[in-house]
This record gives sequence, structure tokens and C-alpha cells, in this order.
Amino acid sequence: MNVTDSTETVEQWDIFELALHGSAEGNPYLDVELTAQFAYKHRMVEVDGFYDGNGIYHIRFMPDAPGTWRYFTQSNLNALNGAGGTFTCVAPTPGNPGPVRVSNTYHFTYADGTPYKQVGTTCYAWTHQSDELEEQTLATLRSAQFNKLRMCIFPKHYLFNENEPALYPFPCLSRGSSTWDISRIWAGETPRGWSFDFSRFDPAFFQHLERRVADLMALGIEADIILFHPYDRWGFATMDAGTDVRYLHYVVARLAAYRNIWWSMANEYDLLKQKTMADWDRFFRIVQEHDPYQHPRSIHNWVAFYDHAKPWVTHLSIQRSDLAQTRTWREQYRKPVVVDECGYEGNIPPSWGNISAEEMVHRFWEGTVNGGYVGHGETFLHPEDILWWAKGGVLRGQSAPRLAFLRRILEDSPAAGLDPVDAVLSSWTGFPCAGQQHDYYLAYFGRHQPAQVTVHVPQDEQYRGEVIDTWSMTVTPLEESIGCGAVVQLPGKPYQALIMRRIYEAR
Amino acid sequence: MNVTDSTETVEQWDIFELALHGSAEGNPYLDVELTAQFAYKHRMVEVDGFYDGNGIYHIRFMPDAPGTWRYFTQSNLNALNGAGGTFTCVAPTPGNPGPVRVSNTYHFTYADGTPYKQVGTTCYAWTHQSDELEEQTLATLRSAQFNKLRMCIFPKHYLFNENEPALYPFPCLSRGSSTWDISRIWAGETPRGWSFDFSRFDPAFFQHLERRVADLMALGIEADIILFHPYDRWGFATMDAGTDVRYLHYVVARLAAYRNIWWSMANEYDLLKQKTMADWDRFFRIVQEHDPYQHPRSIHNWVAFYDHAKPWVTHLSIQRSDLAQTRTWREQYRKPVVVDECGYEGNIPPSWGNISAEEMVHRFWEGTVNGGYVGHGETFLHPEDILWWAKGGVLRGQSAPRLAFLRRILEDSPAAGLDPVDAVLSSWTGFPCAGQQHDYYLAYFGRHQPAQVTVHVPQDEQYRGEVIDTWSMTVTPLEESIGCGAVVQLPGKPYQALIMRRIYEAR
Repeated sequence: MNVTDSTETVEQWDIFELALHGSAEGNPYLDVELTAQFAYKHRMVEVDGFYDGNGIYHIRFMPDAPGTWRYFTQSNLNALNGAGGTFTCVAPTPGNPGPVRVSNTYHFTYADGTPYKQVGTTCYAWTHQSDELEEQTLATLRSAQFNKLRMCIFPKHYLFNENEPALYPFPCLSRGSSTWDISRIWAGETPRGWSFDFSRFDPAFFQHLERRVADLMALGIEADIILFHPYDRWGFATMDAGTDVRYLHYVVARLAAYRNIWWSMANEYDLLKQKTMADWDRFFRIVQEHDPYQHPRSIHNWVAFYDHAKPWVTHLSIQRSDLAQTRTWREQYRKPVVVDECGYEGNIPPSWGNISAEEMVHRFWEGTVNGGYVGHGETFLHPEDILWWAKGGVLRGQSAPRLAFLRRILEDSPAAGLDPVDAVLSSWTGFPCAGQQHDYYLAYFGRHQPAQVTVHVPQDEQYRGEVIDTWSMTVTPLEESIGCGAVVQLPGKPYQALIMRRIYEAR
Repeated sequence: MNVTDSTETVEQWDIFELALHGSAEGNPYLDVELTAQFAYKHRMVEVDGFYDGNGIYHIRFMPDAPGTWRYFTQSNLNALNGAGGTFTCVAPTPGNPGPVRVSNTYHFTYADGTPYKQVGTTCYAWTHQSDELEEQTLATLRSAQFNKLRMCIFPKHYLFNENEPALYPFPCLSRGSSTWDISRIWAGETPRGWSFDFSRFDPAFFQHLERRVADLMALGIEADIILFHPYDRWGFATMDAGTDVRYLHYVVARLAAYRNIWWSMANEYDLLKQKTMADWDRFFRIVQEHDPYQHPRSIHNWVAFYDHAKPWVTHLSIQRSDLAQTRTWREQYRKPVVVDECGYEGNIPPSWGNISAEEMVHRFWEGTVNGGYVGHGETFLHPEDILWWAKGGVLRGQSAPRLAFLRRILEDSPAAGLDPVDAVLSSWTGFPCAGQQHDYYLAYFGRHQPAQVTVHVPQDEQYRGEVIDTWSMTVTPLEESIGCGAVVQLPGKPYQALIMRRIYEAR
């Protein structure tokens, strides 16, 4: 092939996709190697291509700087080797802030510098439902104001999750039962009846997945992609090591160019009894080495924490209900803490799936004032087993609007993030507080109901106070400014917060 | 003196009091030794007497068996030596169940076998107030249904506690200031201005205290007597070792015959910086050796636990807000756990004094289903600083009636007590449950709101269910009996409990 210039333009942090026609013979997934180098001035980025079925090979690339980019392909298949060209990257349009990165040790920022204040939710298996239900989920997300969604690539088998998906990631060779005692997987058994050709992928499955990732991107929602999980009846949790690696290569090649991707190595990794800690380390390194954009990487626990201090972990993804520990985890690992699972608002029998809306909102605020970020989910009994936490649909609870209110509060807080602060409310009063010293303080009183608190902002500084009712979603400005030692009157009821913003004198 | 028979009768577990006229010369508190031996059949009990002022010496004795008791005094003062006689102990009248003892490892029982289900409250300094206020406190207690009251012997100096008491336990030689920075005591300073004759006691102080203990006894309320505490401006927290010992001897001699006495070595012992762990051990042993009736003995912490495994500790008296730990403390120490301080319902600034009524009630239920007992207190701001937790008065909060409801539930539960049970609600559902296997189960859902739970009572047993709304104080019997695997429908809102009582077939 020859190098050809192109008039194509691509928005910064959008996807440039190159389609190449090759051969469908043999097993292209195993036989064909394809990479491309994208060059911007003197910088070079190497990107993996992938086979997309019907003799078509794709290479996807997310340019991160405006200007002219050049590319050139390498392949062991002549038809794919040596293709090259240029395209022009143009400035992003509104609503495209780029991918999210860790910033300021404990926080996140979009590539364009906009702070990213994570208020996430969970629909593990939403892409394995009917088109109608998936569209309803997107309609709900459009108004709900969550900015991250945890979702699995593999379909899910669990309580309230027994429907078969329309598509599987691998060609299905024989179908088995849709019922399976999940504890048998955890005991090391492999489910019987189902078999797949693990040497190939099903492009239709991934094309569908990508469409949904793009739908989330259009809504400004980060897709926290869960690569492995234990809730399995098909054998995807117990594939051999070679298949696991091919799967990771393929997923990263297909998805990494979507700017809203986050990588979660697993949901409840410690329930995947057939994987070792060395496996998880290896998975992290594979993703780290093959993702040209270094999307956020984490791993979510059932009980035992993975060692989040390992260098390939960008942030903590925690399952725990005691949000006050967030501060300890920050100090322990020196990374952002996202408590992705702290219980779900709902009424199903298991205790993790029936906390009240008040408790859900309380946990978000408690995580926030301890310097972290929290995740939502909803599990109300439904006659057709459509629970938001797994399948999406509509939200039935009362917490989501309060979390949207919290997100507005956070987006109106310092760009540097909220870090725990000790000095403002004396340790004797014992209320958690976060902020940025000399600029902004947020104290949260939770289930406490003081009628007044004495505030120790720094000497010779004045602050503007706002009393926040986290449940009623009201913001009540205080009439008098706050100096050191000021006594602030509060409503004397639970779930209140107090914001203090520095008043800077006009010079 | 000669032995004289008496026609006096004393109710079992009431007080037989012997008054002897001696001498007021010198310092009777230091100079005079007085004991008596009380004999019932072949059993002998030795009891300490005490000087009560004006040349009068008293010996008090609580007989624990009906029939004839003989007594005989010993003293280094001739006028007191060799007095003797008999009296008749008669059966107790209703409302006199005797003193409380530990029973069944983790629980309490009155001496007459009636289970004692502790639902306590706290008025640290109520006996140091005006007669009017003290009578109001008693009137409140008459209807409030608490059955234990934590109270200090020494007056209290602290936030909201600056009024001088009318009486002091020692003769006052010079008066000092009523204001004092409490942190200076904790730093090891002794307050200036105040001085007392620590070689003597003030009988009027103790006569007043005893009257209030008797008032509580008449109401069926155990008096949890706090012997030392750190909230001091008079020097009672920093007396020398000899004074401490004389004080303990005197208090035990005066008070032990009151059947409703419990001994608490200290409130927040670990804030009494001038006492060592050896001091606390010694205080426990002194009380243990001199109390003929072996009333319950405990010590209450600020932060660090005393080693409750020591043999003189009868039960744990804990300050902590995490009631779920109750079960761990039971397992650790194998004694009853009373979380005497878990925060107070109120609205004052410090975080320990402003939990909501819902939270107070929740903590009681959480302690209960983890196999323990809990204590109440109330701290609402008051224009004259009359906060229940310190001074008594009236209750202003919403938790007390709910705790009375809990007490009724407990008194309708097995006499053997409620011990944590794992098997009934599967560990997978994760709700705490307590009871007696094969007889009675109490599960509490707290801030969770399951709309249904699956119950695993033992095979081939049937239970009668009651849904308890711990906040609304309703008991809703379930229509259908409960067998193993039954699905029980619940209201799907927080603060519910489920009682299951075994249905025994008529033979």
C-alpha cells in the first residue's frame, strides 16, 4: 500500500477509525498481527488493530492534540501492511472534555482541565438486555446526572439475572442451562452444557457493546468497564490463561480509543477462585502496556483488598459500607478512593441490596467529607426482575435526585478537590470536614444534629457560610460572615452540612 | 454490751440498720474501727460499720434469706464493742426482687430469679442539684421506664455543669473558683482555691445521697454508682492514695446494703491521668473484699478499655458508638456487655451529645441483637443548662418512649437472655439476630429495608412471627406460622425487627 493524505478531520479525543480489507481465511484472530503507528510532530503512539469480521480489520485511535497526525500500519498480512496517511485533528466541541485522569493525588480531572467529580452508578449487565430496555436505561441516565457507570463485558448470572443475552463474546458451540448454582463456580466447578469457540470472538457482540459505550460517551458518562467477574454460568470466569490474554488484547484494541473508558480488572476479584494474584497483576500489566491512552485502572474487591499500592493501579475501587474509612485508605495508598459499592438502595433480601435512600445519600456524603468518591446502585424487587443495579431500566428510589444535588455541590467546590481537614471544626466536636485550606471547607454532620457548632477557620480570614440540607436539597446562606471562633446555628436535625467559602477582599 | 433479742422484722433484701451511740471525740473516721458479724444458721457475713456524725455509728445489713439472723459487733471503741442481737427476715413484698446478679454468662437476673433486662439512662450529677430539680428527676424516672441510672458520688465540673452543689463529701475548708479549665486537671494540675478536710467525711452529704439511692430503689431502678470521675474542680479526682482507700471503705460501708447498688469504679477512668492501672486494680479489689453482697462491678472507659477479663470485673461498661462490636466484646471477655455510653440524643455541639432520636433507638436495638445492653442519655441545649445527662429534670427527646417499648419487648423475651444466633437468617442475608435456639429469635434490620427475608428456623419447627416497628412502636403478628425456608414479607422501610416464637404443640 501507499501512503495517502486525507482530508478527514477528527475532533480531539474523538475516534479516528481506519478500516482495512484483508482476508477472512484461517483464523484471523489468531493468525493476523496488526498494529499502527500514529505520529504527531516528533511523538509516536503505537496502537493495536483488531479483526472485525467479514474480512474487515479496524484500527482505532484517539488523538490528543490538534494538528496533523500521520499513521502507518504493520502487519504479517500483506494486505494490511504499510497502509498509511494523515488526518487533521481539530479542537473539541462543547461536551467533549477528553478522557479522565488522576490529578492532585486523590482526585480526577478531564484532559481539558475540567475537574471530574465522580458520582457513579451501577448497571452491571445493562448491555445484555433487549434494545427497548437498553434505550430506557439511556433515557434514565440522560436525566439522572450520574457521570460514571460500572458495567460488565461478560453477561451476568445471579439472583434476578437468569435471562440469556442475545449475544456472547465468543461463538457459541453448544447451549447449556440458564440455571446454575453460583456457589459451584466459586467452589471451582465449571458449568456444564455451554461451550464456546474461545479461539475466535463474535464481532457483533463487541459492535453492540461499543455502540452502548458511545451512547454513554454522548451523555458525558464514563464507562467503568469490568473485564472479569465471578457471576458466570458460561465459562467466561474460568477461561484458560491464553484465552484471558487474547481477550484482554482484543478488548483494549477495540475500546481504548473511546475517551470515556475506565478499566476495572474485575468485580469482586476475590470471588474468582481460579485466578491467582499473579493473574491479576498480569492483567493489569497487559492493559497498562496496550492502552495507548492510560485510561484509569482499578480492581474491585469482595472482601479482601488487592494491594492498591502496586504501580499499575491508578485509583482504588472499593466495596465496603463504612465510608468513614475512606480517609484511612487515602492515607494508606495515596491514590484516589472510589467506593464503587457501599450497598444499594432497595428492598431485596440480601443486606447489601436494601439500604434506605437516606442511608445511600448519607454514605455518599460521608465518603465525600472523608476525601473520596462513592457509587450508587438500586435494587428494588420487580415483577420481571428488572433491577437497575443489573439491568438498568428506570430508577425507583429516592436517592438519585439527592446525588445529583451532591454532584452540583461538588462541581461548585474547589477544582483541586476536597481533602480531609482537621482544624476547622475542633477535633473535640468530632465532625468530618474536607476542603482546601484557606479557601473552602465542607463539614458534614450526618446522623448528628447539633443546634450550633463553633468554627475555627484560620485567624484573620472571613468566610461565607451555607447550610446544606442534604436530604431536602436546600442551600441556606448564612447572613453573617464567619470568622475564627464563630458560633454557627444549625437546624438541629440530621443530614445537614455546612459549606464555608473564603471571602476575598477586593484589592 | 449484752446480746438482746429483737422483735424487729426486716424484709429480705431490705436494710437492717443498727444504730450505736459512741463518741464524737477525736476523729472517729480515722480512730474507730467497727464491724459486725451477721449469722444465719451456719453462715456468717462480716459487715463494716461507719461513723454517721453526732456520736452515732451505723451498721447496715441486707439479709438474703428469710428466718432468724443473729449479729454481734466488734470495735476498738468499748461503747461499740459486743453489741448483739437477733432480728427476723421475712419474705419480700412485691416490687422487691432483690439485687441484680450476672447470670447465664452474658446476662443479669434479680436474686428472686426475675430476669433483669437492662435499659439504663444517665444523670451524672443529679444528686448535686436543688431538691426541686431532684424531685422532678424522680417524677420523670417514675414514668420513663429506665431500670438503671448512672450517677456520680462526686459533684461534676464540665460544660453545662458550673453550679456549686449544696454539699460536699468532705468538710470544706476554703472555697475556690467555680470555673476551671478541665484540660488542666487532665494535664496533671490540681485546682487552686478549694481545700477540704480529707480526714473526715460530711455525713449530711452521704445521708442525702442515700436518700436518693433509696428513692431509686423504690422506683425499681438500679443505681450505677460512679466512684471516681475526671470532671473535677475540687480535688476529688486527685486525692492521695490513703484518702482514696478510706473513701472507698466509707462508701461501701454506707451503701452496700442498698439492694439496687452497682459499683462503677470510674466514669472515663483513662482520663484520670493521676491514677495508674494498679490503682484501678486495687480499687476493684477493695470494693470486692468489702461489699458483702457482691454487687455488680465495672469500669467505664473514655477511649482505652480496662482489661475486663480481670476476675473482679463482673461485666463490661463500655463507651463506644459502634454497637455491632458488642458481639465481639462478649466473645472476648465472656461477660455481660453494657454499652453505657454510645452517644446522647440531643443537639449540643460535641458529636457525642447530638445524635438523633432515631440513632439513639437504633443503637439500643443494634446492641440488643448483638447480645448486649445499652444506656441512654439526653443532651438538649437548655437556657439554664439543665441537661438530663448531667442534672436530670425532664426528658425532651423522642427516644425514651421507644426504649420503654424495647424494654417491654425484652421482658417478653426468654429469661435466659438474647444471645447472637447465626443460622436463622442466612449469613448471606447478613442481618444480626439474637435469641435462644429452638425457642425464640429476634432479628433486627436497622437501616436496611428488605421487603422480604427467607427464614431458616430449624427443620420441623414452627414459629409465630411478629413484625416490630421499633420507631412507631407497633407489633404486627404474622398470619401464617413460620417454618424452615419461609419467606416473610416486611414493610420495606428502616428500623424494623422480626420476632419468631416457637409454637409448641399441645401434647
